[in-house]
Amino acid sequence: MKRCLFGLTALWLVSMAASALAQTDQPAIKDDFKPSSLNQPGQEYPQVNSQGYARFRIMAPQAQSVSVGLGGRGGTALARSESGTWTGTTEAPLDEGFHYYHLTIDGGTFNDPGTLNFYGSTRWESGIEIPAHDQDFYALKNVPHGRVQKVLFPSKSMNTCPRAFVYTPPDYDKDPKVRYPVLYLQHGWGEDETAWSEQGRANLIMDNLLAAGAIRPFIIVMAYGLTNDVKFGGLRDFDIKPFQTVLVDELIPYIDANFRTLSDQAHRAMAGLSMGGMETKTITLANLDIFSHIGLFSGGTFSLEDVDKTPGFRQKVKLVFVSFGSHEIENPRGGRGMFGGDPKANEDALKKAGINSAFYVSPNTAHEFLSWRRSLREFAQMLFKD
Amino acid sequence: MKRCLFGLTALWLVSMAASALAQTDQPAIKDDFKPSSLNQPGQEYPQVNSQGYARFRIMAPQAQSVSVGLGGRGGTALARSESGTWTGTTEAPLDEGFHYYHLTIDGGTFNDPGTLNFYGSTRWESGIEIPAHDQDFYALKNVPHGRVQKVLFPSKSMNTCPRAFVYTPPDYDKDPKVRYPVLYLQHGWGEDETAWSEQGRANLIMDNLLAAGAIRPFIIVMAYGLTNDVKFGGLRDFDIKPFQTVLVDELIPYIDANFRTLSDQAHRAMAGLSMGGMETKTITLANLDIFSHIGLFSGGTFSLEDVDKTPGFRQKVKLVFVSFGSHEIENPRGGRGMFGGDPKANEDALKKAGINSAFYVSPNTAHEFLSWRRSLREFAQMLFKD
Repeated sequence: MKRCLFGLTALWLVSMAASALAQTDQPAIKDDFKPSSLNQPGQEYPQVNSQGYARFRIMAPQAQSVSVGLGGRGGTALARSESGTWTGTTEAPLDEGFHYYHLTIDGGTFNDPGTLNFYGSTRWESGIEIPAHDQDFYALKNVPHGRVQKVLFPSKSMNTCPRAFVYTPPDYDKDPKVRYPVLYLQHGWGEDETAWSEQGRANLIMDNLLAAGAIRPFIIVMAYGLTNDVKFGGLRDFDIKPFQTVLVDELIPYIDANFRTLSDQAHRAMAGLSMGGMETKTITLANLDIFSHIGLFSGGTFSLEDVDKTPGFRQKVKLVFVSFGSHEIENPRGGRGMFGGDPKANEDALKKAGINSAFYVSPNTAHEFLSWRRSLREFAQMLFKD
Repeated sequence: MKRCLFGLTALWLVSMAASALAQTDQPAIKDDFKPSSLNQPGQEYPQVNSQGYARFRIMAPQAQSVSVGLGGRGGTALARSESGTWTGTTEAPLDEGFHYYHLTIDGGTFNDPGTLNFYGSTRWESGIEIPAHDQDFYALKNVPHGRVQKVLFPSKSMNTCPRAFVYTPPDYDKDPKVRYPVLYLQHGWGEDETAWSEQGRANLIMDNLLAAGAIRPFIIVMAYGLTNDVKFGGLRDFDIKPFQTVLVDELIPYIDANFRTLSDQAHRAMAGLSMGGMETKTITLANLDIFSHIGLFSGGTFSLEDVDKTPGFRQKVKLVFVSFGSHEIENPRGGRGMFGGDPKANEDALKKAGINSAFYVSPNTAHEFLSWRRSLREFAQMLFKD
């Protein structure tokens, strides 16, 4: 009975969306749908319209049920046409930016064959991109481009050569005498070292900031944070030591030996999103002789208590940066509540105490990649200002 | 009726395979199945046994039919268990090496959520790896590793900055005075610039050959060959000019300006697999002032006629290398028949004419990546021997 009721509700929502009927609290759905920019070559679906609605179309003629799951953003049941395709439109517009999703077909979980896959939720998931009003800052433009290098670095602690990605700025190979600061940039739970240069577009954000003269050139290192062995919700049991060993004892020495880095504390930063922010806070506070600039994107805040209980914080930390998506701040179950302390009040207290502290809120986004693309853009402009 | 018969046949095959009954012409299936090395983290299926049989398991409780399509290697219908999973084993062992596949679920095409995806057949497909007896040469080992760099190079002809991948050998950044030869290495129809470093494992093949002292260090450049706008079978209509423009007029100058290359003809090679071999033959013969070493992997042969009708061939070409999988040679519809001339007879004729010519046959493989991994291993050892 429950399933049946859900089916009816979902069908009503799809029908409402597809017929573009104006509801009192929902604008009419504009018929200007275009393929998502993340679609596989030549694929027409999924599509997105100018209001941010997403429309899905799946071919599965003999299926009994097909629906789209958009993480915390709810589900969209698709309706079958006579030709055997299943089509549906989201109940409401999606936030601007990148979203993971998957299909449920006859009770099984699959990806949409129309779009590219991105590693999230400990699996390769489908991705869709809602064009953002400020998408220019992460667009592929006709500017000089840096490179994203896949490295395999030796790790005794892991007994293998794990993969990491390294962004080098456009002029990196022009002058072999120039050395660069380094940002170690971590993904979130369920993601891996591919996240920041794929769904995060970190390399394009850097290329565009550099072309605009807005930042000092630096290297970004993106490694796997060993986050995925922990079940979501069991984060308190996460042991930071294995990743700290890989990062501090193995990866950093490899990077400093194989890239032209400025290898002193003043020129090394660490930041991370969500669980990568938790990792960043723990590792940097335990290693203030190694890191000077710290960024937490939707992954905790810094309080005066953190400062007072960490020897050397006031002398060694050059910047603490905290950010959230506005929907995280609005929602008491996200943002402030979840991550220990009001971020704005914390920032004010730190500033009063003379700490170089910054707080950024990404407008109209939640715990998702547009918040973090914008956070990187803001954070990058504050880094290595010596 | 036809579908019904197919269904019965397939069910019989699966049942035969799963129950491991010894048939007169088929050995018993050993019960030593292990997860494929290409599975997503933590995924138990697909699995492979020591004989090369593949076993698939898909969760889709309400599905009507689930089958596995393995390209030219036929299909495997899966049978539903009471728990809602669908399981089946291939009718026969698969060739060693990498294979693309996909699922057909209730008439729709999807990927197996258990395994990684690889770009082939103009879409991201599921991949499975049958351990090869000689897999050591492309294994991730504890040796110095080169890097695979994602570059975005300016292309006026394409009016964008297309992506290419560049392999640099392990010591590339050690001495800024050393310059390297370059191999331009092309994927096949339906694939893209990711193929050689992912399913091809070109970087690991190079790392291992270099660690063994078997080759001279060189750079490999892997770009998209613009092959996917042509329908398979319509290859005769393919226009080489747009890709030749990107490669010769845009990519090569970018690589020579941004990497420490030896940029003369003697130190530039081109090779490609399948349709990439056709591209290689056409572009190199039209540009013998640019390329000196040429490799065709399952993508055509060189005849004395090619030599005679190409001005400067005898003076300028330092190596022609041709390879096929043995199953291509055995099958008159593949190999010799398809690609214009008996490759062994052609090699003999070229050798008699004083051309440095090599012919390699990959044992017990077809038109697939293990043939090409081995071809790269052989070809690399013959390159840049000046």
